[in-house]
Amino acid sequence: MLGRLNHVAIAVPDLAAASALYRDTLGAEVTEPQPLPEHGVTVVFINVGNTKIELLEPLGEASSIAGFLAKNPAGGMHHVCYEVDDILAARDRLKASGARVLGDGEPKIGAHGKPVLFLHPKDFQGTLVELEQA
Amino acid sequence: MLGRLNHVAIAVPDLAAASALYRDTLGAEVTEPQPLPEHGVTVVFINVGNTKIELLEPLGEASSIAGFLAKNPAGGMHHVCYEVDDILAARDRLKASGARVLGDGEPKIGAHGKPVLFLHPKDFQGTLVELEQA
Repeated sequence: MLGRLNHVAIAVPDLAAASALYRDTLGAEVTEPQPLPEHGVTVVFINVGNTKIELLEPLGEASSIAGFLAKNPAGGMHHVCYEVDDILAARDRLKASGARVLGDGEPKIGAHGKPVLFLHPKDFQGTLVELEQA
Repeated sequence: MLGRLNHVAIAVPDLAAASALYRDTLGAEVTEPQPLPEHGVTVVFINVGNTKIELLEPLGEASSIAGFLAKNPAGGMHHVCYEVDDILAARDRLKASGARVLGDGEPKIGAHGKPVLFLHPKDFQGTLVELEQA
């Protein structure tokens, strides 16, 4: 069921500084910032060849990552995103096993224009897990 | 300089339970536990196709992840590991840019039998970064 790792997301307090670090010091390929108001974040993707790192900066008042940065002011690893062939089948299988889906349980459109869901970190060893339709 | 993502490491309080979750509920390919006394951890690798997830359980009294689990009893994302072509050249370039290398600054042999180094999370937006010789 679990497909490839689409990305690792890192919440950062300063997207421009973080992008410069990955581009200039680490020599990585970095995209332009992409605001996603419906998710309350601005994102930058770093291409590391086999997968991507997603840098997240809060956008707007109700940003979902503002609370995370309040607890981790320097930033930190926020979630991992796996691809699945059928997001509704994956959701139903996980719910049947007792895992909790965040929000209203219905997929939303994510940063890549594909349906995504988030699973409760308490059901995955403290790790927030995103599923994305492959 | 930054190569592919070799793995994402997740510290877990119960390696057997975490392995069962990834194998049975998430349907992933999971290795047998591998004790690494010199690193103070027992590891399990989960193959997700394009990269790996490394589950870490403390091993012994002086485990490097016991403190992390004391702060995060449910577990959580612990570090990311990138491959580099030349670990000494990467280290020297990072040090020249002001990044701090943990420990004595010399590579040790990691879980894959290759030289590894860890970089200070404060220099990478709160993210502990491991470099592994490709």
